[in-house]
Amino acid sequence: MPQFPPAHPFDDDKLREECGVFGVIGVTDAANFVALGLHALQHRGQEAGGIVSHHPDEGFNSVRRFGYVRDNFTKQSLMETLPGPLAIGHVRYSTAGSKGAAIRDVQPFFGEFSMGGAAIAHNGNITNADALRRELIERGSIFQSSSDSECIIHLMARSLQRNIPERMEDALRRVEGAFSIVAMTRSELIGVRDALGVRPLVMGKIGDGYVLSSETCALDIIGADFVREIEPGEMVVISDEGVESSFPFRRKSSRFCIFEHVYFSRPDSIIGGRSVYETRRQIGVELAREAPVDADLVCPVPDSGTPAAIGFAHESGIPFGMGIIRNQYMGRTFIEPTEQIRNMGVRLKLNVNRALIRGKRVILVDDSVVRGTTSRKIKEMILDAGAAEVHFRIASPPTAWPCFYGVDTPQREKLLAATMSEDEMREHLNVDSLKFISLDGLYRAVGEAEGRSNSCPQYCDACFSGEYPVEPSDMIKKGFELKAAE
Amino acid sequence: MPQFPPAHPFDDDKLREECGVFGVIGVTDAANFVALGLHALQHRGQEAGGIVSHHPDEGFNSVRRFGYVRDNFTKQSLMETLPGPLAIGHVRYSTAGSKGAAIRDVQPFFGEFSMGGAAIAHNGNITNADALRRELIERGSIFQSSSDSECIIHLMARSLQRNIPERMEDALRRVEGAFSIVAMTRSELIGVRDALGVRPLVMGKIGDGYVLSSETCALDIIGADFVREIEPGEMVVISDEGVESSFPFRRKSSRFCIFEHVYFSRPDSIIGGRSVYETRRQIGVELAREAPVDADLVCPVPDSGTPAAIGFAHESGIPFGMGIIRNQYMGRTFIEPTEQIRNMGVRLKLNVNRALIRGKRVILVDDSVVRGTTSRKIKEMILDAGAAEVHFRIASPPTAWPCFYGVDTPQREKLLAATMSEDEMREHLNVDSLKFISLDGLYRAVGEAEGRSNSCPQYCDACFSGEYPVEPSDMIKKGFELKAAE
Amino acid sequence: MPQFPPAHPFDDDKLREECGVFGVIGVTDAANFVALGLHALQHRGQEAGGIVSHHPDEGFNSVRRFGYVRDNFTKQSLMETLPGPLAIGHVRYSTAGSKGAAIRDVQPFFGEFSMGGAAIAHNGNITNADALRRELIERGSIFQSSSDSECIIHLMARSLQRNIPERMEDALRRVEGAFSIVAMTRSELIGVRDALGVRPLVMGKIGDGYVLSSETCALDIIGADFVREIEPGEMVVISDEGVESSFPFRRKSSRFCIFEHVYFSRPDSIIGGRSVYETRRQIGVELAREAPVDADLVCPVPDSGTPAAIGFAHESGIPFGMGIIRNQYMGRTFIEPTEQIRNMGVRLKLNVNRALIRGKRVILVDDSVVRGTTSRKIKEMILDAGAAEVHFRIASPPTAWPCFYGVDTPQREKLLAATMSEDEMREHLNVDSLKFISLDGLYRAVGEAEGRSNSCPQYCDACFSGEYPVEPSDMIKKGFELKAAE
Amino acid sequence: MPQFPPAHPFDDDKLREECGVFGVIGVTDAANFVALGLHALQHRGQEAGGIVSHHPDEGFNSVRRFGYVRDNFTKQSLMETLPGPLAIGHVRYSTAGSKGAAIRDVQPFFGEFSMGGAAIAHNGNITNADALRRELIERGSIFQSSSDSECIIHLMARSLQRNIPERMEDALRRVEGAFSIVAMTRSELIGVRDALGVRPLVMGKIGDGYVLSSETCALDIIGADFVREIEPGEMVVISDEGVESSFPFRRKSSRFCIFEHVYFSRPDSIIGGRSVYETRRQIGVELAREAPVDADLVCPVPDSGTPAAIGFAHESGIPFGMGIIRNQYMGRTFIEPTEQIRNMGVRLKLNVNRALIRGKRVILVDDSVVRGTTSRKIKEMILDAGAAEVHFRIASPPTAWPCFYGVDTPQREKLLAATMSEDEMREHLNVDSLKFISLDGLYRAVGEAEGRSNSCPQYCDACFSGEYPVEPSDMIKKGFELKAAE
Repeated sequence: MPQFPPAHPFDDDKLREECGVFGVIGVTDAANFVALGLHALQHRGQEAGGIVSHHPDEGFNSVRRFGYVRDNFTKQSLMETLPGPLAIGHVRYSTAGSKGAAIRDVQPFFGEFSMGGAAIAHNGNITNADALRRELIERGSIFQSSSDSECIIHLMARSLQRNIPERMEDALRRVEGAFSIVAMTRSELIGVRDALGVRPLVMGKIGDGYVLSSETCALDIIGADFVREIEPGEMVVISDEGVESSFPFRRKSSRFCIFEHVYFSRPDSIIGGRSVYETRRQIGVELAREAPVDADLVCPVPDSGTPAAIGFAHESGIPFGMGIIRNQYMGRTFIEPTEQIRNMGVRLKLNVNRALIRGKRVILVDDSVVRGTTSRKIKEMILDAGAAEVHFRIASPPTAWPCFYGVDTPQREKLLAATMSEDEMREHLNVDSLKFISLDGLYRAVGEAEGRSNSCPQYCDACFSGEYPVEPSDMIKKGFELKAAE
Repeated sequence: MPQFPPAHPFDDDKLREECGVFGVIGVTDAANFVALGLHALQHRGQEAGGIVSHHPDEGFNSVRRFGYVRDNFTKQSLMETLPGPLAIGHVRYSTAGSKGAAIRDVQPFFGEFSMGGAAIAHNGNITNADALRRELIERGSIFQSSSDSECIIHLMARSLQRNIPERMEDALRRVEGAFSIVAMTRSELIGVRDALGVRPLVMGKIGDGYVLSSETCALDIIGADFVREIEPGEMVVISDEGVESSFPFRRKSSRFCIFEHVYFSRPDSIIGGRSVYETRRQIGVELAREAPVDADLVCPVPDSGTPAAIGFAHESGIPFGMGIIRNQYMGRTFIEPTEQIRNMGVRLKLNVNRALIRGKRVILVDDSVVRGTTSRKIKEMILDAGAAEVHFRIASPPTAWPCFYGVDTPQREKLLAATMSEDEMREHLNVDSLKFISLDGLYRAVGEAEGRSNSCPQYCDACFSGEYPVEPSDMIKKGFELKAAE
Repeated sequence: MPQFPPAHPFDDDKLREECGVFGVIGVTDAANFVALGLHALQHRGQEAGGIVSHHPDEGFNSVRRFGYVRDNFTKQSLMETLPGPLAIGHVRYSTAGSKGAAIRDVQPFFGEFSMGGAAIAHNGNITNADALRRELIERGSIFQSSSDSECIIHLMARSLQRNIPERMEDALRRVEGAFSIVAMTRSELIGVRDALGVRPLVMGKIGDGYVLSSETCALDIIGADFVREIEPGEMVVISDEGVESSFPFRRKSSRFCIFEHVYFSRPDSIIGGRSVYETRRQIGVELAREAPVDADLVCPVPDSGTPAAIGFAHESGIPFGMGIIRNQYMGRTFIEPTEQIRNMGVRLKLNVNRALIRGKRVILVDDSVVRGTTSRKIKEMILDAGAAEVHFRIASPPTAWPCFYGVDTPQREKLLAATMSEDEMREHLNVDSLKFISLDGLYRAVGEAEGRSNSCPQYCDACFSGEYPVEPSDMIKKGFELKAAE
Repeated sequence: MPQFPPAHPFDDDKLREECGVFGVIGVTDAANFVALGLHALQHRGQEAGGIVSHHPDEGFNSVRRFGYVRDNFTKQSLMETLPGPLAIGHVRYSTAGSKGAAIRDVQPFFGEFSMGGAAIAHNGNITNADALRRELIERGSIFQSSSDSECIIHLMARSLQRNIPERMEDALRRVEGAFSIVAMTRSELIGVRDALGVRPLVMGKIGDGYVLSSETCALDIIGADFVREIEPGEMVVISDEGVESSFPFRRKSSRFCIFEHVYFSRPDSIIGGRSVYETRRQIGVELAREAPVDADLVCPVPDSGTPAAIGFAHESGIPFGMGIIRNQYMGRTFIEPTEQIRNMGVRLKLNVNRALIRGKRVILVDDSVVRGTTSRKIKEMILDAGAAEVHFRIASPPTAWPCFYGVDTPQREKLLAATMSEDEMREHLNVDSLKFISLDGLYRAVGEAEGRSNSCPQYCDACFSGEYPVEPSDMIKKGFELKAAE
């Protein structure tokens, strides 16, 4: 079983985005652009990646691999097997499928229909996948993967519509959950977002061609210009004849994932017209206002805590310093030499800048607390190095509920905030103080001056609030209990 | 030919440390500790690594591999082939040997002598290696590698002394240049530094055992305590009976490499009692004093410019911000899709945080300018993103001379500062201003309040000053011209 | 694209069996037995192999790989991923599918049905596969491979029957062509042969368990006892409760592939109660009677011509000798050094035993002539070595028609015998004489004392006679012309 | 540790030749010819192979690899790294060095001398290597391998002679044992045989170029013409100016290895003017005369017993038949499924042709008996298949002494014939009769009509007679006892 180094030093203690999608039409050797786009989206999924291309003479071709884009999609000989002006790609962390990773679970998925082939790449999660799968098997579909996203292909195969975009509409009307999809036929690049617009999807332009991407940072890498976001509930079909837009799903008010701002998206991406970096810096500013503390040093937990720490330091006037240094070669598990080494897992990835920390009252700024296991270890390293006080400031509210819309979260019982109050967490972590930003503070930082509208929240914040905009029906059948009405 | 991703986004435009060394005695399964130590020293050499261990029953064993420590030395089955309480290791960028990398050039080197075997790992460079090699071949030595460091083994083989440490002394007296050596016999761990102490070497203690390492950050990763630096001209022989120190070489006043402070060493290491991070931050402070400029944002070129940028921002009062975002998955070369993409090499590694930069007067803080090629590209990206002004502040003096003491530098003609004045460079880079820290400013930042003592410089600063403390005799024979006496 | 050394020195000039199948039930770690069985059947397919196993607790597991069984299925760690008392496997040369080999085309195929999973391995070829595939896609099936055998799984998925064996019957009634199938459910091992029994399938017993195999030689390797052949048109379902036999297809008179006797099967296998070795030897005897010639040496083209050569020598009284020596390490293509080397492809695999050949009148016995390209090269090598005369004796009639029942044959135009008479071939090969065994002689050698019954032939001999017992309907649609009625 | 399939089904119960050497000068891209030559010599060593080439502009280049020639030396990109008109190569089974195979032990070895480089490939064994090695280390040589052959390079490095051929003479005068050497300088191809000529070496011509090879079969594969054998004690130096021959060693009467005729050499090679195949056939004839027996079938143990079996059948008039069929895909070790399978190791490689054997009195002809383990297993398989009687006829005398001249033999205690008489062996193997050819019979078969000259034997037959033509001095120091004088 392939094992890949996680991207973040504490990925086992972070929520993880499960996928990134990217597609291009109207350029020479589109697959090369897709490789670059996926490389820029690698933070959204490190386990595996795939590209499908289409060439008028050579038809569809596909390569799917475990590992990083930079390791798999950079050889001339391989890229030459993916010719043509139209291509889509996908990176994934893991799917809702079986844990034993298999290459057949790696997207894009491909299906041959009577009117031609189509490939599909999906970011999100289908909350009624179990029920759909059971129904499709009863009717005679043979599944080739354990991925829920394959349901979409089988629903399309059974649609009575005459062309592929209409078959896709047909199929997606049966699907519940969150989806941002990039798909392709022999001549069309297709993008779709679910009616709530939970996961991101943007459109760009490069020369005479078009691009669809999970984030804007992947437009930058290929020098494409940002055009606009695909709207919640919108489907775009891009061909030689231009961009055709439709809104095939019942309209709802948008509920974009607020955690994309907090952690998932890259800081150099722009979402809803806002710089992600600037939003995170502003979270730090809000935190400094909500939870000030007298101290000598503001220190980020690298790298994701850095913008908020810069904002906190700026607002509080306390100096910013890099008290924790990240090993840029971090990776797999070493053989543990002996019991003499405590916290080796952390040491492989981070080291304390002892000379800077010694004797200081330190404010540690981190983006989130999930299980809390690494927060403890960092605190110990900081104290071992001689810090006088340790104050945690967290750039998101307590994560108390799992996500069912395309994010890998531990079961609810494993979430520290599901079982402890803020005070209990402080005691559990044994730090001098611990403060999370408030949900309203977070909404202010993303630009909602009035904070959260509890009657009609502007974002999906289910991981903090327990309010799920789409009912997780498969999970409920498996015993998951929704938050009791208050 | 194996290709490995460079560690720094512009490694092709940086000076590169060539080696890191590490050794342990007196612990169970010493090789596991060495693997961890080398992982912490990976920034000193990414091309290849090797470990030699010794076990009383199983003798010497050795594994040498191209690639990262984390990829090569983490498998149980492999590490079990390296048993015993005594082991040394080496990571290298490249040697002074042939460019066609061969595994036989990867250290540690091993030699079987009549009194037993010895392994040796070398950080530095031998400036009279050509002459020594020629002499040894005349006398009947067969070289197995193209590495100059192998001379030491052959000199030892021909020594008339009765034990290995004395043979090593004998050999090293014939060697000119810079060397920090970690070596081992069946029962001894040996450390040596040349008389000028150009390259670093420190000693640590773990349980009843001892450690030798290029830097203190590698003591931290295994939880060892820092004991002291090996002194210039000192040899330590560590065995069951403790540490024996001697000074076999003619004493000289110390000339430690000042560039270790500027760039090579990890910021969390401590050299000569000073935190490398703090020194770099202080360089930023000095720069802000020497070369102030009115601007809106201090922005580091990640990651090595960050501490100096923090210092510059603090001293100048101008806000610190991450205007350039590094792709943490950067790597090999992608297939260039078309000419539509300019500066793709840079985009693979860095992206501009456009929302932050737009309309601002930006101070870019970088650690050094070598060829200047990437400085130009970064400037263009910053301007493309809409910056109003771009000011470069460089945390080292102009690099005008190659290093011959274990650092990979371009030929003198390729060094921008060798052919241009500061003003010409500013024009060449086409930026609003460009300032390097002065040599005196740099000496102040490393703690020499009076600056550089020109009569007897406290450091080796040949790359800036052209004053070589050891004559590069092989290079002079090949036509290199020393700086004319003034 | 993986490339594997062909098994026979002139495989590019031989007909090639496309598949071997093997299955076991009722033993501990059945997959280990299957690996051995497939190893013994490797001559039936060298390109790829796969094994599916089922364990009550761990469900179905599957491994499919390109390359030899001995290279893929011999690692403990891999075999441990295939637990359970029930397993089937498949080796293939290539499928009727796309030429770009893909691992998804490697059998056994697996399908999840509403009543549980099933895996299927197929030896043979479906002559109406194109039509079936088109129909299935119209109805919404998504094909995962380019292999025609996958049709069977999709037909089963759409069957209205309540259990898997009945669904398989249902599916196979729609299938035209030749098939010997080994399949499995969670608790049953299933074997089926088409109504004509074109391809072989035998049953064996090992301890309390049962075995199904393409040939008896694979029973020998695991020490199983031969029980009987599965009969044409028979389906056996083997479970804890024993063997259940049925005959679900319309009965026809049997037409076993006569080429299995000539070349495909291993000489140590027993078919229809006859030793394949003995049959081949007898072909040599018949040949010596039909086409005697005065000569000094009977020399086989190794290895497949050896038994017939032994028979020819015995019957004729002319000494048997190994005039051609096979390089047992033959393999991939070497870089051709210069034009100095003629016939290098042949030299890589065979060398003439010059001292034996020189001055002799040589009878070369080969099993068949397909394109004739290698026959020419061998003749030249023999003459270069100084033979006085060269007489070819071929142990099969002229191969003038392609096979559509699971054998890889060149297009009809490429078959030497399709375009030339025996005399023209002799001239083309430029040998002193050339004789093929007659069709009646071949029938006598396989035990039909009266020769071939032209009204109702006892075997499928379409490759010689052009009389196809099942109409190749897909091929006819593509333009293939049947032999004109005489 | 790399594991390669042995070439012969019972290689663990055979003596094994340790090396083959090959060299070419005067052709374009000589390394391609060497690859072909080594492929033809693969039977002399399967573990590893290496090629060194020299090009006037690009100097010496070398590739050394574990595994088969066909797998390593067939890629265009690799072969292009070995340019030039002069190249030598080596295949080896294993060296007298350490058992943990290391690539640094793979020949050819290379040494840089003051007058230029030289590469050397050695077939044979140095019987005073331990003493030489000790002496060289005392004097300051650093060995890079555990191979005894490296002594030659170090002796050359210390020679006072002015050119490489003379240094080689100097070195070889210190060496005891057997050696057939192919070496090269920048402009010369050198061949040398020890004074007894124990191991073979032949010269061929291709165009204007020359070839040196262990056997003639490797001349055939590249289309070179056989010129002559290098004579015992001869050194040839081949350059642009032709072939220069000298006899630098003290002359002795020749003692060529008789086992090359029995088993090592390929049957299509010609040694001393005799076809190896014909010699082996003649051994069978002699055996039939010396040890006739009434039986129904003469059956070879494939493949090496075949020529002798043909001779035995011809002389005795008993029919020849292939009672044992070899699996041509034999290979690595499979996981043993259960204790149900007896003799699996044998079954992987051989299967009995049951229909042929049943009820017959069988004469099994094998080339040699070493440990006797596989002879037992074959006998059991034959009896299991229903043979009425089993008679072993062995085409060599009892192997009672180890070889110290470049052949891998078990220790004397493990040789069946060292501890048992022929009768005891027959009982141990439990066969109806067992007969070895007599030493005189063997000498007659190789053409010595009078048999062995005991006063001055024409061949080295130490493995049969215990008479060692060169004293194995290292082994005697380690306790080996020579045969007591009679």
